[in-house]
Order: sequence, then C-alpha cells, then structure tokens
Amino acid sequence: MVTLRKQYVVARQVYSEDSFAEDHEKICRVRKTILDHVKEYLTCDSKRAKNAVLALLPIIGWMKIYRVREWLLGDVVSGISTGLVAIMQGLAFSLLASLPPSYGLYTAFFPVLTYFFLGTSRHISVGSFPVLSLMVGAVVTRLVPEDRPPANITGFEGLTQDQQRVLVASSVTFLMGIFQLAMGVLQVGFVVVYLSDTLVSGFTTAAAIHILVSQLKFVLGLQVPGISGPLAIIYTLEKIFIQITSTNVCDLVMSIVIMVVVFIVKELNDRYKAKLPVPIPIEVFMTIITCGVSYGFSFETRYDVDVVGKMVSGYESPIAPSMEVFQESAMEAFPIAIVGFAVAFSVAKLYSIKHDYTIDGNQELIAFGVSNIFGASFRSFAASTALSRTAVQESSGGKTQVAGIISAMMAMIVTVALGFLLEPLPRSVLGALVIVNLKGMLIQFREIPYLWRRDKPECVVWMGTCLGAVLLGLDLGLAVGLGMELLTVVFRTQFPRCSVLANIPGTDLYRDHKDYLHIFEPKGVKIFRIPSPIFFANIEFFRDKLVEAVGFNPLRILRKRNKALGKINKLLQEKDGHITERGLADLFCQTTDKSCINVEELDLPTDLKGLPFRMDWKIELPTNISVPRVDLHSLILDFSAVSFLDISALKGLKTALKDFIRVGVDVYIVSCDAYILEKLHIFMFFDDDIVTSMFFPTLHDAMLQVLEKHKEDKSQGSLLADTKL
Amino acid sequence: MVTLRKQYVVARQVYSEDSFAEDHEKICRVRKTILDHVKEYLTCDSKRAKNAVLALLPIIGWMKIYRVREWLLGDVVSGISTGLVAIMQGLAFSLLASLPPSYGLYTAFFPVLTYFFLGTSRHISVGSFPVLSLMVGAVVTRLVPEDRPPANITGFEGLTQDQQRVLVASSVTFLMGIFQLAMGVLQVGFVVVYLSDTLVSGFTTAAAIHILVSQLKFVLGLQVPGISGPLAIIYTLEKIFIQITSTNVCDLVMSIVIMVVVFIVKELNDRYKAKLPVPIPIEVFMTIITCGVSYGFSFETRYDVDVVGKMVSGYESPIAPSMEVFQESAMEAFPIAIVGFAVAFSVAKLYSIKHDYTIDGNQELIAFGVSNIFGASFRSFAASTALSRTAVQESSGGKTQVAGIISAMMAMIVTVALGFLLEPLPRSVLGALVIVNLKGMLIQFREIPYLWRRDKPECVVWMGTCLGAVLLGLDLGLAVGLGMELLTVVFRTQFPRCSVLANIPGTDLYRDHKDYLHIFEPKGVKIFRIPSPIFFANIEFFRDKLVEAVGFNPLRILRKRNKALGKINKLLQEKDGHITERGLADLFCQTTDKSCINVEELDLPTDLKGLPFRMDWKIELPTNISVPRVDLHSLILDFSAVSFLDISALKGLKTALKDFIRVGVDVYIVSCDAYILEKLHIFMFFDDDIVTSMFFPTLHDAMLQVLEKHKEDKSQGSLLADTKL
Repeated sequence: MVTLRKQYVVARQVYSEDSFAEDHEKICRVRKTILDHVKEYLTCDSKRAKNAVLALLPIIGWMKIYRVREWLLGDVVSGISTGLVAIMQGLAFSLLASLPPSYGLYTAFFPVLTYFFLGTSRHISVGSFPVLSLMVGAVVTRLVPEDRPPANITGFEGLTQDQQRVLVASSVTFLMGIFQLAMGVLQVGFVVVYLSDTLVSGFTTAAAIHILVSQLKFVLGLQVPGISGPLAIIYTLEKIFIQITSTNVCDLVMSIVIMVVVFIVKELNDRYKAKLPVPIPIEVFMTIITCGVSYGFSFETRYDVDVVGKMVSGYESPIAPSMEVFQESAMEAFPIAIVGFAVAFSVAKLYSIKHDYTIDGNQELIAFGVSNIFGASFRSFAASTALSRTAVQESSGGKTQVAGIISAMMAMIVTVALGFLLEPLPRSVLGALVIVNLKGMLIQFREIPYLWRRDKPECVVWMGTCLGAVLLGLDLGLAVGLGMELLTVVFRTQFPRCSVLANIPGTDLYRDHKDYLHIFEPKGVKIFRIPSPIFFANIEFFRDKLVEAVGFNPLRILRKRNKALGKINKLLQEKDGHITERGLADLFCQTTDKSCINVEELDLPTDLKGLPFRMDWKIELPTNISVPRVDLHSLILDFSAVSFLDISALKGLKTALKDFIRVGVDVYIVSCDAYILEKLHIFMFFDDDIVTSMFFPTLHDAMLQVLEKHKEDKSQGSLLADTKL
Repeated sequence: MVTLRKQYVVARQVYSEDSFAEDHEKICRVRKTILDHVKEYLTCDSKRAKNAVLALLPIIGWMKIYRVREWLLGDVVSGISTGLVAIMQGLAFSLLASLPPSYGLYTAFFPVLTYFFLGTSRHISVGSFPVLSLMVGAVVTRLVPEDRPPANITGFEGLTQDQQRVLVASSVTFLMGIFQLAMGVLQVGFVVVYLSDTLVSGFTTAAAIHILVSQLKFVLGLQVPGISGPLAIIYTLEKIFIQITSTNVCDLVMSIVIMVVVFIVKELNDRYKAKLPVPIPIEVFMTIITCGVSYGFSFETRYDVDVVGKMVSGYESPIAPSMEVFQESAMEAFPIAIVGFAVAFSVAKLYSIKHDYTIDGNQELIAFGVSNIFGASFRSFAASTALSRTAVQESSGGKTQVAGIISAMMAMIVTVALGFLLEPLPRSVLGALVIVNLKGMLIQFREIPYLWRRDKPECVVWMGTCLGAVLLGLDLGLAVGLGMELLTVVFRTQFPRCSVLANIPGTDLYRDHKDYLHIFEPKGVKIFRIPSPIFFANIEFFRDKLVEAVGFNPLRILRKRNKALGKINKLLQEKDGHITERGLADLFCQTTDKSCINVEELDLPTDLKGLPFRMDWKIELPTNISVPRVDLHSLILDFSAVSFLDISALKGLKTALKDFIRVGVDVYIVSCDAYILEKLHIFMFFDDDIVTSMFFPTLHDAMLQVLEKHKEDKSQGSLLADTKL
C-alpha cells in the first residue's frame, strides 16, 4: 500500500542564531516588570471597583439571574433532602472531632450563612467534612485528653471538659479561617495544585483508616481515650484490643445490622440509579428506626448503650478564641486550612465544569475563611464540604446556594426544637454510619497496582503519603507526602537518559545513534542531547555523562598539554644551549614535586605564543612527552528540551564548556529556547570564550556549519549537505 | 561585510512518526529491568570480589603506589602543622558542643584512625567541624540543660553533668555514624546533590551567626545556659543583654586584642601568600602566649577568668551509646549525618579535582560512618572535616592520609602528656579564635545582592534557608531550605511562558508569533509550544493557556453542538409529522430543565449518523439554533521541551486532546522525545481518538501535512512547501 507522499523541500541559507537575528527583524517587546504589574494591580477606576465588589459578593451576580419559577422548587426540595443528610453527618462527624453531637448541627448552620453571600460555587453543600473533623479532633484530644489533665491554658479555668473541647475546636477553626482568609487576600489559591490526585488519594485513604479506627470504640461500645501524635493509631488499636472482651454486644450487633443494611441498600441505589426517582435515604430511615427502638426499649439503661444524650437546645452566646490555643495549634491549623480548602475547591470545580460556570479559587478561600471565622465565633467547628452531601444537593435539583440556606434552616429547626428526639440515638449507630460511608475512600487502595504498573514514582508517593499519614498523623503525613511529591519532580529530571545523536542519512533528522541501523556520524563531531532542564541536582550528572560520551576529560587533557608545553619549552632552551644546572632542577621539579603547587596554572588555556613553531597536538610529539590525542573537533549540544537553567547549572555548564573550548573543541548549542537565550545574557553567561555565535537554531544548521568548517573531509560534506530523497 | 553563506538544502518526503518508523529500521534494544540490574549487582566472581575489597579498603590502593622518598617528608611536615591546628580547633569546637575541651582532642584522634583505612580522599583532615559541633551542642543542651534537671534518661543515673553530656554527644555521634554507614551501604551518596551551593551558602551563614552568638558568652565572660529549639538565638541574646553589665573586662579586652591581632595577621598571610614559605601560624602563637600570660599572672584567681581547667589525662574506657538518647535525638542526628557528609564530600571533591584522583561518595559515607561509630565508642563527638584545616594539610605538603595519622599522633601526645600545659588557657581566647575564623562564612552575605540581580527564586532560597536556620535552629532550617529548594524546581516549571508559534517565511523555522514582524500563520492552524515538562502542578495552567490561545473552549462547543443536534432532530421529527404533545414537552425539557441531568450525554462525540444530510457546523444553522463557529481545523502541539509527563498530566492532556478531536480539530504532536513516546504506550495513552499517527518528527513535517490535507487554500500551500531562498 504505497501512497504518494508529499515532499519536504527546504532551501535556505545556514543560520546561526546571530545571522538569523540579522536577517529577521524582531519586534522589540517591552516586558512588564514586577513594578508594572503592581502598579496595574493597584490602579483603581469605577469599573474596576464595581468588578471588585461583584467578585467579593458573588451573590449579586447569581441573584440577578435567579429564575424563581424554574429554580426555586428545585432548590427547596434539594435543601430539604440535603438538610436531612447534613444533620446526620453533623451528628456523626462531631464524634470524629471528639465533641458533643449538637456542635455538629452548629457546623451545618453557621458557615452556610456567610458562604451564601461570599461563595462562588452554586452547588456545594457547606458544612462538616470527616477528614477535617478528625484533624480538629486530633488537636482537641491532644490539648484536652480524657484520661489526663488538660494542657496548661488559662482560658480553661472553670470550664467543664466538654466546654474546654469546644473552646479548642472553635479556636482551631478560627485560626484555620484566618489562614484561609489570608491566603485568599494574598491571592495564593493556586497552592492547591501541589496536592496532586495521587497525593490526595493516598491521603484520604489514610484518613479513612484513621476514621475507621476512631469509630471502632463506638461500634464496640468501649471507653478508649483519644490519642494523638505519631503512632497514635497503633496505640489506639492496642488499647481497643486490650479491652476487647468488654465489648458491648448490643452496640456491636446493632452496628453490624445497620452496616449490612445500609451497604446493601446503597449498592441497590447505585445499581438502579436510572430507575429510582431519588436514592432511598436509608441512613435517615435507620436513624429514625434506631432512635425509636432505643427509646422504646430504653437501651441506655437496660444495655448500658452509650447514647447521644442531652442535646444543647438552641444556640449559645458567641465565644472569643483562645490565643494560647492558637500558639499550641498553629502547626496543625495550617494543614487543616489547606485540606479544607482543597476539598471544597475540587468538589466545587467538578460541578462548575458540569454546569458550565466559573468559580474563583481566591474568592472561595475568602468565603471559607470568613465562614470558618464566623462559624468558630458561634462554636461550630471546621467547615468545608463533603462530596456525598454535595452530590445529594445537586442530584435532587439544587441550582443555587438557596438550597444551602434551606438545609441550614433544617439544621436550625433540629437544634432549636427537635433535638430532644435524637437524644436516645445510640452513638454506635452514628459510628456504623460513618464506617459504612468509608467504602469510597478505602476502595482507593485499588490504585496501588494501577499506579505501580504505569509509573513507579507516583506509586511511591501514594504509598509514602498513605503510610506517613497513617503512622505519623494526618498533618505530618501531608507534609511527608508533599515533600515526596516535590522530590519526584526533581527525581524525574535527575537521572535523565542522555543520548548521543546521529544523522539519519538523507534527512535533516537526528536520532539516538544506538537506536538505528543506518546512521551517519561524521568523524570528529559529537551531538549530545540534554533531555531535561539543568539544575543543581543534575548538572554534575550531565558533566559526567558528557565526559563519558566524548570519551575524554577535557580538563585532564588541558593539564597534560600544559605540562607537555612546559617540557617542550625546557627542551627548546636546552637546544639553545642556555641550559643550566638550575634549569635542570626546575625541569625535574615541574614534572614531579612542585606540580601540585602550580596546579592552578595548568588549568589556564595553553599559551602557544612563545613557541617558534605551530603546535599541533595531533601530530607525534617527542618520544618522552605523551599527550592523549583528541579526535573531537566539534561538540554539538542539543538544548531543545532544556526548559530552564538555574545558577548552579550555569556555573557548571560554563566551566564544562570552557574546558572543551580550551582544548580546541568547537562547541555549538542548538535549539535553545529564545527566552533562555535572553536569560543567559542577564546571567552574564557570555565572555571571551563563550560567545553568542555558538548558538544555532537547528541541529542541522550547526552540522552544516561544522562540515563547512572542516571541509577536508570532502566526502562527508557532500553526503549530508545535498541530501535528496 | 557580506560573507557567502552555506546553503541549507533538504529534500525528502514528509514524515510522520509512523511513516518514519516504516522507512527507518530501528534496532530492537533490550532494556534492562530492575531485576536485571539487581541480578547483575549480586553476581559474584573473583574479580568483582577483589574490586569490592579494594573499594572497601582504599588504603591498599594508595599504599601500593606510596613513594616513600618523595612523599614521606611532606606528609610528616604537613601532619605536624595540621596537628597543631587540629588541637586548637578541637579545644575550641568542643566549647561549641558544650563539652569539656579534652573531648575535642579525642575527636582529633579516634576518627582519623579508621578513616586512614577506609577513606578515599588523600587530602582531607578528618576531625571536628564547627557547624556539626554546634548541632551536637544543641542536642546536648536540650537533654542536659545547665539550669534545669536533665531529661529523664535511665543511663544518666550516677553521672556528673559533664559525663551526662559526653554520653549524649557520643550517642548522637554513634547514631549519626549509623545513618552514614546505612546510606553508604544503600549507595545513596547522591543525596548530597540536593544541597545546592545556594542552600549550603545560606545554611553556613546561619550557622556562623549561631556560632558567633554561642561564643559571645565566653568572650564576655558571662554564665549563660545553652538554649536550644526554635528562636533559641533570640532568647540567648536576651539573656546575654540582661547580664551585659557583669561582663568580665579582662576576658573582653583579651578577646578583642586577640581578634584584632589574628585578623590582621591573617590578612597579611593572604596578601603575601606568594612570598611567605608557610602562612604564619598566628593562632598557635596567640594560644601559647595567652597560656603563659594567664599562668604567670594567675588570671583564673586574680581576674576570675574562666579557663580550660583540669584536662582529662589519657584516654577513658569505651562507652556504649544510650538507646534512650537515640530515641530522643533521631530527628536531629539525621541532619547532622547529612551535613557532616556533605561538608566532607565537597571538600574532598575540591582536592580530588585539583590533584586528579577519584573519590567515591558511597565509600566516603561508609568511611565516615565507621569513623563516627568508632570515635563515639571512645567518647569523641561528630567528625567531618574543616576546609581551613584541610587547606593547611594540603598546602604544607600533605600527599596522603599518612599526614592525617601524624596529626592524630600530635593530638594523642597532648592528650596523654602535655594536656596540663593548656589548663591555664582562658576559654575567652578559644571563643575569640572561633569568632575571628567566621569571617569566611559571614562574608557570604554578599551573595544576596548577587543572587537577587541574577535569579530571584535562588535568592529567596538563600534568604529562606538562612532565616529559617537562624530562627528555627539548624536542623529545622535545613529542612525548610530543602523544601524551598525543591519548590523552586516546581515553581520554575509551573508558570512557563507558553507561546503560539508561526512560520518564518522562506524557512522551516518557527518562532513566537509576537516576536517577529514578517511571519506566516496559515488560517485554521494554531501551533502551541509547551515550553516545560508537564506534571500535576502545571497541567491545568496549560489547559487554560491552550483554550486562551485557540480562543474557544472545545468542551463548551461540543455541548452546544449536541444541544443543537437534539433540537434539529426534534425539528426533523416535526417535519415528518410525527410530532406529539409529548415530543413538544421533551423539546422544552431538553433545552431548559433537564439539560443538566443529561449533561454527561452532552460530552459525548456528536452523533451525526442519524441525520439525513451532511452536517457542517460552519454553515448557517436554522435561525433559532446558534452554535459558535470554530475556524480552527488543526492544532499542532510542540512537545520538544516536554522532558517528562506524569500521570496527572497524561489524564489532563488526554481529556484536553479528546475535547478538541470531538469538535473536529485535528491534533498533531511534534518533536516528542522517542523515550516519552515509548512511555505513552506503557501508560496506555492511545485509544480510538488519540492515535499514534498524530505524532510527527518536526513541526515543519506536521505543517506540510496540514497544508496538504487542507489543499483548498492553494495559495498557502505553495507559499510554504516550495520555499526557496
């Protein structure tokens, strides 16, 4: 099946970057400096001011286009369904935060109010998120442990243990809000890109394991004090297994039944998604049923089941955060702020793409910052969003944050009026509901073999993040994961495959000389491809590879030549009859004893001026002088994949190039990015040895230039230059 | 000055990567798997065994070539001079480690003995290093503070404070040795490349500040307890200023005199380096003089000067390290191990290049690991090398580690016999000598403006490392610096300059279309250059830039087309007279209410099969249906600078490409690295939409292919294809 192929015909002059610049006029583009950007950023006119206000209050934007008749019904229905889920999750996740359940209802209420005005996402359901709750819980149990006296904080005086815990949780949330607000104001919302999918997957899997372990005590009906810090999970498991014999069978049986039922119904919901008008709200049913059963059979007194108990009815007065808690928990509040925002942003983005509107990362940071600060003042804990709840809000027809407000109202009703109905609810039921919802997170273990087959560094990051977060705790684990992830970027470019290229005969294409049978490698020319950016971590590697590729170390050659030159000069003096005893001693010294003292001089370019004849290192030297022959006359470095250079790389590169130039090898650099070439001037890369004329736009240009310069090898020149198909 | 330039003439067929592979036979190279490497590594034969032994005991190598007559004299002279310096530094640096001075002499003795056998460097002087001593001192003062009871460690019972400190220092050193040995055995010596010049410069400057502050109390003759942990430097300065009025004037005056004299003589040494046979050993003179003066005028009793005092005479029995100290100091011993090795390796490398022999990083790690373990057993503390001492050893004629052994003998003589002579030496003298030697490290502040002008990220790393190490302590500061440095690598590739390329008329060259006046951009073709690797941190950035460059969002177009198609189908049904009330309602629903429920369907490729006519999105559609026109028919992505892709990038890239392909844009990828192309197959990047035939070896090949395919624009095709000069 031979098809007539199009011909590739090019005839132009050979360009170096210099001659190219001469022939082709470049537009002088004035690049903005940092100062210009700042100035522009600070310029203010009425339009900008209006836009800024609109950006700060996104509600103005969507309220104007709100279609009451079409959207309101959907929002109300969605708000009610989401509200039910939010109440359930609020109660359950407050156990993760080691707080009384009523504070979970606060978290489903207060942050929503401010997000309504400030948030750019129309679909996310603001409120508690299990991983965040757990991270707050780690701080709470560290500062107010169950089995030991609380940390030495003045604000704790005269408070009950629960009140102390609420103070810690709200202070951490306040601080988290400050961090988020600050990041939003500083416009650094882009930091979430550092949390790659792999990292987040490993991290959330570890969080699921933590959540599972933390809920075991409720499911088993055991009294296990919360433990925090590195290896906390091991100690917790140890404490659970020590008292496993005192398991409350009533709790355990009830939990298992609930888990099985909920699991099955959820699978059915998934399978018959298309046929069901709405998914069966099995969790709500189970809660109502167990509430009734527990009340009817007085589980609390008869089976000693731990129940939700007295709910705080209504709202409490706002509290000020504790500065001392700020100091104690600053290192933990920062990762909480990051994780909270990252989760909310990724969920918001998912739905913004689906429904084709834009969200603004920095405004989201501001919205969550303010919401958390506001919520914390009213004793709620860390708010973000949960994918499961947001999915309910969106799939049940929610169009805007009006649905969010309605769900908040539901939480308010329960707090103010219906809380007493939840009092007989066993805590083990909440624990079981939390555990059964971990399936989606735990299933991520499947990614390990997938990643291993495709990309090993990525798999290592996953496992490292997960193991780190499981063993060291979520905050340290996140730091470990981030460090590993950044390392992979460096690692991928640290040991790249350098290759020596060769011409594919009859074309202007160059490929790895080991890969192809029919190649053309002119004598005395080496083409070395640098396949990655050059920076501190790989500059030495490149220099070694380059020396390996050319087959000699130019510095060593240079020294040997300089030594030989010294000898030759002596020999010349000898011939001239000027030899003295002192001269002989000097000659002896130079070659043996003092050679290292003058070693710096040996690194200078060989000075051939004083010689009465033209020195050619390739010809035979006097028998007692040996200098290795250098067959290379041109070295071409392919810079096409060099996307940046740092200062270490520049220094190393400069030295390496100088060494080659000093032993008489012409160095050519080809396909260098225009922007990098510009930077090289700024970095003062050029001097007497290293000049701009060594830069060529393409490899073939440089090759033609080399062949032109070394025309003696006639056959080669013609072979390449006039290649025709 | 017009020179006749060489012509660039190429005539060949247009290649895609597929047709290129057909025409040019590739050699099937069997790549080694990890397993092969492991197998090869574990293969054993007599030659390998012999080489391994030689590598493990480098002394065999250089002892065989030892030229007794030429080298021995130099080694002895050098050993004696180095020994004097080593004794001085040992005494002084033991103050940094908060230990009695005699242990500094141990450090100048024991580690040298093992390094003699195991080390590959012939010139470095093994022994104490100020930064390391300070880092050990931080652990010592944390576990055994002066003004509070020591940490709760069982091994401390029945020991004096000094003995406790020695136990801590030797345990930390032991652990550091274990880390170094382990790294050497695991062959991970390459980790030192992560400590870039910038990082090391910032770090050592911070260390110099710490050393300066720690020596102030000796110079001023004050009693200040050692403080460790974050902000320790601030608290130390506070304590010093509180009691500044109780300064011992004798100490202060003596210190200032010594500092001035030593400073001046050192400057003179530098200036007249060429004329002086050896530098004046001013520090040794000053020590001897002050020793004598202090003894003669009984400084200790008369002026209450703090002197070195009772030296331990001779050697003590070995001690076992404390496991409890291991646990307490593991997080600090690791950075100590890294810093110790990094310093030694960089100094060793300097001299190995100068004297043209090779050193082996991993063997150095083993050598220092064993030396530190051995030394720690005999109560010496962390050993590495100091550039100043090594410079003395090399410049005074040292050729091999025989000089090191002689200097160790000098230290032994002082320990065993002459220690009493040093007893009247005021500690302030040692402090003054340490401070005056910081000049070289503090002068590195000059790098700030240099780096700022050249490369701002690098400058930020310097300042961040320095500030971090000053405020948080050296170990945490090193971690902060490393994190920042890794971030810069990511940051440099995170917001790269994407550009749209255009043909330079008459050539096969393509440049940024904004940079040149005369360019050729065929209609309907966009060439987008990706100037950096693609990975998790910049894939979203690229997708945004790509959408910006082409001027439309392909996903949005696809959805609009699918919606329009739905409408057209309805209209067709209407025409056929099959319209029912239900059909009308559906039509209404699809465009308004239910559109989001079926939103997934809108992302599928437009299905044009059912239509009775050929759909052309560019022609006018019925008036009530509007779909934005897409004028682009081909998108060429220049991958020449893409040196790697990670999994996030692959996923994002695949989605982006699919979106373009589904709206009928042909995508071409050019200049993709052969190795990356191979990886794409492993990653399962290709499917029905994304095929290998979209890859082309050069931009010009792809452009010719595009012009051939869209021949209707005759003028354009001819303009480009037959370009002649």
